[in-house]
Amino acid sequence: MSRDLSEVIGRVLPAPENHLSPELLEQARKARRSFMGKALAMGAGAMTATATATRALAAEGEDVILNLPEHTTGLGQPVAALGYGQPSKWEANLQRRESPGLTRVSQASVSFTPLQGLFGIITPSGLHFERHHQGWWDIDPSKHRLMIHGDDGMIKRPRVFTMDDLMRLPSVSRIHFIECGANSAPEWGNVALPSVQYTHGMVSCSEFTGVLLSTLLEMCGIDRKKAKYVLAEGADGSSMTRTVSIEQAMDDCIVAWGMNGEMLRPENGYPLRLVVPGVQGVSWVKYLRRIEVGDMKWATKDEAIHYIDHMPDGTHRQYTGIQECKSVITTPSGSQTLLDRGYYNVTGLAWSGRGTIKRVDVSVDGGRNWRTARLEGPILPKALTRFNIDWVWDGKPAILQSRAIDSTGYVQPKINQLRAVRGTRSIYHQNAIQSWLVSENGEVSNVQVY
Amino acid sequence: MSRDLSEVIGRVLPAPENHLSPELLEQARKARRSFMGKALAMGAGAMTATATATRALAAEGEDVILNLPEHTTGLGQPVAALGYGQPSKWEANLQRRESPGLTRVSQASVSFTPLQGLFGIITPSGLHFERHHQGWWDIDPSKHRLMIHGDDGMIKRPRVFTMDDLMRLPSVSRIHFIECGANSAPEWGNVALPSVQYTHGMVSCSEFTGVLLSTLLEMCGIDRKKAKYVLAEGADGSSMTRTVSIEQAMDDCIVAWGMNGEMLRPENGYPLRLVVPGVQGVSWVKYLRRIEVGDMKWATKDEAIHYIDHMPDGTHRQYTGIQECKSVITTPSGSQTLLDRGYYNVTGLAWSGRGTIKRVDVSVDGGRNWRTARLEGPILPKALTRFNIDWVWDGKPAILQSRAIDSTGYVQPKINQLRAVRGTRSIYHQNAIQSWLVSENGEVSNVQVY
Repeated sequence: MSRDLSEVIGRVLPAPENHLSPELLEQARKARRSFMGKALAMGAGAMTATATATRALAAEGEDVILNLPEHTTGLGQPVAALGYGQPSKWEANLQRRESPGLTRVSQASVSFTPLQGLFGIITPSGLHFERHHQGWWDIDPSKHRLMIHGDDGMIKRPRVFTMDDLMRLPSVSRIHFIECGANSAPEWGNVALPSVQYTHGMVSCSEFTGVLLSTLLEMCGIDRKKAKYVLAEGADGSSMTRTVSIEQAMDDCIVAWGMNGEMLRPENGYPLRLVVPGVQGVSWVKYLRRIEVGDMKWATKDEAIHYIDHMPDGTHRQYTGIQECKSVITTPSGSQTLLDRGYYNVTGLAWSGRGTIKRVDVSVDGGRNWRTARLEGPILPKALTRFNIDWVWDGKPAILQSRAIDSTGYVQPKINQLRAVRGTRSIYHQNAIQSWLVSENGEVSNVQVY
Repeated sequence: MSRDLSEVIGRVLPAPENHLSPELLEQARKARRSFMGKALAMGAGAMTATATATRALAAEGEDVILNLPEHTTGLGQPVAALGYGQPSKWEANLQRRESPGLTRVSQASVSFTPLQGLFGIITPSGLHFERHHQGWWDIDPSKHRLMIHGDDGMIKRPRVFTMDDLMRLPSVSRIHFIECGANSAPEWGNVALPSVQYTHGMVSCSEFTGVLLSTLLEMCGIDRKKAKYVLAEGADGSSMTRTVSIEQAMDDCIVAWGMNGEMLRPENGYPLRLVVPGVQGVSWVKYLRRIEVGDMKWATKDEAIHYIDHMPDGTHRQYTGIQECKSVITTPSGSQTLLDRGYYNVTGLAWSGRGTIKRVDVSVDGGRNWRTARLEGPILPKALTRFNIDWVWDGKPAILQSRAIDSTGYVQPKINQLRAVRGTRSIYHQNAIQSWLVSENGEVSNVQVY
């Protein structure tokens, strides 16, 4: 591999909305063509790799000697200069972005995570996607309370907890993905959004810390024979209420205050959020203030009218919250541009609400042939898994796809397989294979392949 | 456990420097005593837990009905209101902090991570400790280069890489701790710093993404028979240069651009840093610009004069960079205050530069008796591991300690065991068991136990 790599390295430009205007993109292309032309004129094609590198070293050396950069000669910034640290100024364009016009007001909207610019499995909290139903708040934790109760003796010792009370309890820390049930929704209707930020950017993954919901329910004396469901309610104006089965509530649900090592961010539910691993984000109730134990589903507005699956026969399914196995290639992806033929590291993310990722296959020819990608560790249940695979682009059109298989054996479907069962009228739970077309000019775009 | 927990929840106040002035702390204590007094006067001691909770619920309910908070009735903030997300305003005092007077100038100083306020194993990048030798920079990545070379044919194809070149290569993502070799140094000399932020706050843990150094060296045609060491050099004014053995270089070293999912932060080496898992932070050269391959150690200023171990017989040891197995309890810890007797979740961190954490034991009586703590997953090599254990404080003085054992069987030593070998003149590589004294008034302080 090493010899191949040394000669076939390509370059990829990020999506224009992140770094480059169309004009700058064209400039970059021209500059690249000009450089390649000069290199050829110099006879670089016939030079050995060593000679090329030596020449480059010499040129670089001259630059360095004649013009030492300030950071090599000067005194830098002091420690703690910023207080809480911030990203480089050179990364200012890598941001969560709202999809204009998606909703009427930005308080009931979405901002998407820029997956095309991220690495590994941990989503930086500053880039975690947002989905609010009535805007976000920064609630005073000293005044926040969580009440746990239930009728008919289902909770024997109802209780109101302060944050201090909760944070003294036995805690767990676990890495889980959270995905909005509507992630990738436009693909149902053939609306090919331009970049992975908009097609898949409502998924993030963090390390959550809190007390298991089962610990709290046991403390409050839950009657396991009577209790069938819990209702989780948030303190914000959206009156978010969601039913969670008692099996899930007593399994791995976390009443969480920590996210990626620190307290939750306000836009993600500070100071308290319900973590429901593997289940769509709407059930991860933010600003969690109440848990009620009952013996029937509540059929709240956000589970009876919204977050339902419209089926082809005109019926609809409710309470289908588990996020099925899914994957997507994040680089190269829509709106990026490959500037050269040659080697690329194709990378992406896979996840399953039902367990761990067992395997990810990648195709560069629209699904005719598949190769198995390398999975980066740790491979954790109900968490993102990063995959990588080598690819040498020959300059011809190519269609890149990834297909994930989870620990239950479930294979991520093609879009037409999914539509055969679910029709085209759905919003939620679209987990089909995503296809990226690489055109001859290097531009990558979103296409649907059947 | 559930019944016990419901009746014995205690409260802990954070370290004063994070949240409370001494005046506020005294107010909190008075308020608590007043509340406890009223509760006793009400006969709460004789009330059942259910009756107490019901009364509390009723009181809370009245508050809520009479005075609905704005966040329940109003419209919140829109998505993407902040651009790059920030912590809650209520967490503003949880910061990296410089130890005043530790060094002459803040460009050659340290800021410490507030471990007492963190959860899990991922350190938020905004709170990652800093250690600069000549200040930090925010280098333009389009102008940054990495040169790889070596004399005597040790590198057959020397090369200068741009960031674009590097980021196209096969990448890995791995979670590792980084610890400054001087972390916990004052304990050598019996200088008991007040809080875990200052005693242990030069350790952090992140998910790093980059190309394996072995991939680059193979691309450049390393001669494995001649090559014994590599030199890593940074681009900032400190001329940081460090020798790394070829075994480590070809094993798990990463030339990293990603940290916790996004590009490195400027104060942590943006745009390129060498990750040397298990080895002290000074070898994780920031602003990495050059890798030279050689057959002898370089004995640079930062490995011949600094970062050496002074031994009791007057000699010194060099090249002792591997961070041995270590652990510390982060809550309760120095400068925090326990306000009540009762249940506490004792939590902390363990790590080893030689592998994984196998076990952590906790003592509450200064090392006479030990219980085994729960380890949170994932347990990864050369990464922080979070541990938790239950403790019911009876109000008497207690000495809290943690003792880690790694996958090699190494047991974290007591301070007197370490001093018996290493003396007291050292600065670096102090990994002894840390002791926290809980006094009868609930105050926690740093003590040394032999």
